Amino acid sequence: MIPFTSLDYDMMNRAIQLAWRGRYTTAPNPNVGCVITKHGEIIGEGYHQRAGEPHAEVHALRAAGELARGATAYVTLEPCSHYGRTPPCAKGLIDAGVAKVICAMQDPNPQVAGRGIAMLREAGIEVEVGLLEQDAQALNLAFLKRMRTGKPFVQLKMAASLDGQTALANGQSQWITSAAARKDVQKFRALSGAILSTSQTVIADNASLNVRADELGDEAIATMAPQTLRQPLRVILDRQNKLTADLKLFNTDGEVLVLTEQEQSLLDEAGQFDIDQLCQMLADKHNINHIWVEAGATLASAFIQAQVVDELIVYLAPKIMGCDGRGLLGALGLESMSDVTELQFKDVRQIGPDIRIIAEPKFNQ
Amino acid sequence: MIPFTSLDYDMMNRAIQLAWRGRYTTAPNPNVGCVITKHGEIIGEGYHQRAGEPHAEVHALRAAGELARGATAYVTLEPCSHYGRTPPCAKGLIDAGVAKVICAMQDPNPQVAGRGIAMLREAGIEVEVGLLEQDAQALNLAFLKRMRTGKPFVQLKMAASLDGQTALANGQSQWITSAAARKDVQKFRALSGAILSTSQTVIADNASLNVRADELGDEAIATMAPQTLRQPLRVILDRQNKLTADLKLFNTDGEVLVLTEQEQSLLDEAGQFDIDQLCQMLADKHNINHIWVEAGATLASAFIQAQVVDELIVYLAPKIMGCDGRGLLGALGLESMSDVTELQFKDVRQIGPDIRIIAEPKFNQ
Repeated sequence: MIPFTSLDYDMMNRAIQLAWRGRYTTAPNPNVGCVITKHGEIIGEGYHQRAGEPHAEVHALRAAGELARGATAYVTLEPCSHYGRTPPCAKGLIDAGVAKVICAMQDPNPQVAGRGIAMLREAGIEVEVGLLEQDAQALNLAFLKRMRTGKPFVQLKMAASLDGQTALANGQSQWITSAAARKDVQKFRALSGAILSTSQTVIADNASLNVRADELGDEAIATMAPQTLRQPLRVILDRQNKLTADLKLFNTDGEVLVLTEQEQSLLDEAGQFDIDQLCQMLADKHNINHIWVEAGATLASAFIQAQVVDELIVYLAPKIMGCDGRGLLGALGLESMSDVTELQFKDVRQIGPDIRIIAEPKFNQ
Repeated sequence: MIPFTSLDYDMMNRAIQLAWRGRYTTAPNPNVGCVITKHGEIIGEGYHQRAGEPHAEVHALRAAGELARGATAYVTLEPCSHYGRTPPCAKGLIDAGVAKVICAMQDPNPQVAGRGIAMLREAGIEVEVGLLEQDAQALNLAFLKRMRTGKPFVQLKMAASLDGQTALANGQSQWITSAAARKDVQKFRALSGAILSTSQTVIADNASLNVRADELGDEAIATMAPQTLRQPLRVILDRQNKLTADLKLFNTDGEVLVLTEQEQSLLDEAGQFDIDQLCQMLADKHNINHIWVEAGATLASAFIQAQVVDELIVYLAPKIMGCDGRGLLGALGLESMSDVTELQFKDVRQIGPDIRIIAEPKFNQ
């Protein structure tokens, strides 16, 4: 056990809080915070704000200036060791004469993966790793998953009445969930790298599927200039070319990627989109760590059956509609309770009049 | 605003805590607690334990003895004014020479309804009413509803997967919810006056539908001798006389009331049980304040449609089963979202691996 002091905990905690400030803007980069201290006082701090812009360490070192010589740096993720759009942060810390670096965790990015730490140690800097590691992991669930597995982190959003219905038999479904729940959805969208839906959903609601700064809530706005809002890539499955240029989707900020049956490589033998291939393509070709899926029961079922869902985000409205409505998921054709997908409830809370449940599927591996 | 002191709040709070101790045993009587103080010290306290046995005030007065002269009594419900199985408590307080009585609330029981308070005041006792009234109401939701409206308080229990399914299409449904949820159900059963189900449910599960002391949890056992456990009346709807004497139902402690189509007065024109009549009969003929309904989708729908449900108690298991299973409710045949039954979520929490939601239906009156 490394003997971290209570000052160490306080400073790393501060770095983690700073890192969270970048949550809506850093993708596909990770959220990282840095605090530099000397004689127990903070002499510089910062966080990564946007891909292509300076890393957390650079902001903190700039603020510390000459004082950085002999100082201790707290970083929520191992400093990078490679030349990307910015020079390696490990080199920056060495050049500034920092005496000690405490990282919350090693960076699983194959381009770093311990090389940043090694570079610091070779330069004679004392390095310790693992302080508040769990909190640091929570900063970057999607980034870390893709770095470790090559696959994106997938959240599937669903909304229904308490008895699991999304619409009446005749299709009526207005306002199943509340304005508070729809506002909550904006935060999840804003955190994602891509919002995935279908032409059916887009056309039915004339949905723009973008992020609206004014709905992110005070707390978010307080940490972000509205003009810096990053719009996730909107990915629409439209096999039959049903989308038309007049839809709101095409007349709002942000990029749209329409996938039709022209994308032969993404289709399975039955001519349907192969969900696994689709997710992999978004990671590999579009650098997407985090996919937010917001569509109807058919796509939801396809994602469950493909076993690619990391989290279900389910909003339950205070209504009962009867089993003759439309279900949350399509037919799964299960014949034994042992085939049922088990979940683990990770978070349950009231959002306005609704309940939000975050659940992690336990797919049989 | 009556100027209650902080001592008053402490003492009434104590009386309310005492009253809760009777929750599994007092039905159909209300839960009542009493604390008697003199010079700021508790000189006697007690709570009502069982119908037919002494009321809270009697226990407290016995403990206080001669010291009660000139003392202050805190009672969670207006002292009774009528001769029932025990003499009126208002008279007991007068005879003991108590100087002041503080009641949390008036008793809506038509046999009392202010007469206890009037009796005390006529005897020259200072009486104040309304201290911690909301907490006192919470002690006796079912008793108070029946006293005020003549109708019983109805809780409808349901259990399903997160997507609102109770079984697969082929009927398989074992272990939808956890042992922790089933234990939680025991507490609700134990609080009720009657457990209502159908012969179909009883036969399918060979369900005993009784209360098992060892499943009520430590906290309950600590406040109650197991041999004093009160078994709610088990009411089984069995139109076609399908129940057989070998079922566990008939071979466990507690009374069973089987209702068949012989009960002409309880059937509607279609020959089905009239839910409203049924509830009214249980209140009027069996003195039931509180009905706990535990059955399948058909009976659940009938209760919703009869608009007699005060609370839904819904357990959601961490599973997804697909819309081709069996729904939480039967078909309600709704054609407009404005016909949907709105709820208010009153309590949401995790019970073991499951989620328990308590919701209050907002029927259009």
